[in-house]
Amino acid sequence: MFSKETISEDYKIIQDEICRGLELADGSAKFAEELWEREGGGGRTRIIQNGNVIEKGGVNFSAVHGKLPESLKKVLKTDQDDFFATGVSIVIHPKHPLVPIIHMNIRYFEMSDEVRWFGGGIDLTPHYVFEDDARFFHQQLKQTCDQYSAEFYPKFKIWADDYFYIKHRNETRGVGGIFYDKLTPDSSGLDWGSLFAFSKSVGRTFVPAYAELIKRNKDKQFTDAQKQWQYQRRSRYVEFNLVYDAGTRFGLETNGRIESILMSLPPQANWVYDFSPQPGSEEEKTLKYLKKGVDWA
Amino acid sequence: MFSKETISEDYKIIQDEICRGLELADGSAKFAEELWEREGGGGRTRIIQNGNVIEKGGVNFSAVHGKLPESLKKVLKTDQDDFFATGVSIVIHPKHPLVPIIHMNIRYFEMSDEVRWFGGGIDLTPHYVFEDDARFFHQQLKQTCDQYSAEFYPKFKIWADDYFYIKHRNETRGVGGIFYDKLTPDSSGLDWGSLFAFSKSVGRTFVPAYAELIKRNKDKQFTDAQKQWQYQRRSRYVEFNLVYDAGTRFGLETNGRIESILMSLPPQANWVYDFSPQPGSEEEKTLKYLKKGVDWA
Repeated sequence: MFSKETISEDYKIIQDEICRGLELADGSAKFAEELWEREGGGGRTRIIQNGNVIEKGGVNFSAVHGKLPESLKKVLKTDQDDFFATGVSIVIHPKHPLVPIIHMNIRYFEMSDEVRWFGGGIDLTPHYVFEDDARFFHQQLKQTCDQYSAEFYPKFKIWADDYFYIKHRNETRGVGGIFYDKLTPDSSGLDWGSLFAFSKSVGRTFVPAYAELIKRNKDKQFTDAQKQWQYQRRSRYVEFNLVYDAGTRFGLETNGRIESILMSLPPQANWVYDFSPQPGSEEEKTLKYLKKGVDWA
Repeated sequence: MFSKETISEDYKIIQDEICRGLELADGSAKFAEELWEREGGGGRTRIIQNGNVIEKGGVNFSAVHGKLPESLKKVLKTDQDDFFATGVSIVIHPKHPLVPIIHMNIRYFEMSDEVRWFGGGIDLTPHYVFEDDARFFHQQLKQTCDQYSAEFYPKFKIWADDYFYIKHRNETRGVGGIFYDKLTPDSSGLDWGSLFAFSKSVGRTFVPAYAELIKRNKDKQFTDAQKQWQYQRRSRYVEFNLVYDAGTRFGLETNGRIESILMSLPPQANWVYDFSPQPGSEEEKTLKYLKKGVDWA
């Protein structure tokens, strides 16, 4: 059995690959790195800003350990104190309103040999939903999942629909993707080695999928109204991350490095009171797709 | 003893007064009203936008009743089901970066003759802290409090410092004000009539205090850098309201009218990665004042 050090070392390699891939896809901006340490671990926060394509994005690696707060012990139904967590987390906010926002996370959590698991996922938040792009994205994810288990994609797709859901708006954050948590041999039927390999495969699905979506959309013309709509959709992203996202909550409650946790928030977000899109518009069509249960793959 | 209907009728009158007062202070924009009803009550949402002074603001009245969700029953340590809640809630986001954001709320909550209370408060969030303005604001609040009890201002000022606190940023939302909750004869030594009168006096302190702060600052010159700083400070306001604010959480969990609850969010907010103000700048001075325990009155 590989050690937690092996996992974080491999996650670092994946972070490196992704940063190189995103710099290539952007064509102009470069990542700036900040190494940080806290009592019990540290990380490599990498931020890319003001590029050709990417307005603000982060690709973070961290490996931290510590004592679990009482509130989280209840949520995790454990009476153990010590945790180790490592992962790579990405959020990219593009400049162009027709290029989608994307999020990816792979993580490993361990409290003991008995209590440990993999988690992660990738999901897409287009400001405007293009059916072809959503289908392509889901097919890429399905392909990765199917290499490990035929049950993964259908299960993790539904999980993403349920997880990336803005309850108070009655809309999904975007067109979903895959989400999984507490993945163990017991819950999956796969051994630890396969689960680790799956985790890395998810990480390595990110760049080719997103680079293609950038290529398809980055040179399209757009209007000022589309730009305004982008700012409004970003405000929903803020609402999801601050109200519902478990990773963000975990970071805020475990006194994590705040700028690394909140790098997921967009450079600019607008709240317009009671906005309703024009009937028949592209904006209205997008809202219609922000529902659970759309079969994209 | 006055009824809950009397309380909501008087709160409506206060809403009317405040809207007239804000329109006068703005000098251009008018409130647009939406009446809404849901199963168990309704409200009057009033929004003012794109004025001389006010970029986006809401003055909401509501009176709702229903069944308390299990999660809130635990928080309130009650096993009763039915609740009634009425109140007036205000958030004003000014256009001008040197005019402060302000928030006011007065509310009454009732589950039975035994379980009921008043709550509320006013607090100020300047994008730039001006000592004279903060002192004036706190003195106005102290004057109102002192008419009812010498203990109110000191107690409610500390309460506001503790409540309007963005834990993950280790900063207060602004220069505070007053905050109180579960105010009853037992907790205050005042009879119900005096508590009701106090609640209305808090409501009537809002317009004169804010109109003065508008007058002092609305014609000052400002720079583009100050405007950018305003957008960044607004992002902290978003973080507080979505992560910590009990009223917002209550609204989201009781399936409230979402656009009325989230009218508190700013028209535009910006997140800049790891921003540090220049040493000696006005921005840095402002951050130094965003601490608990500053004696403004």
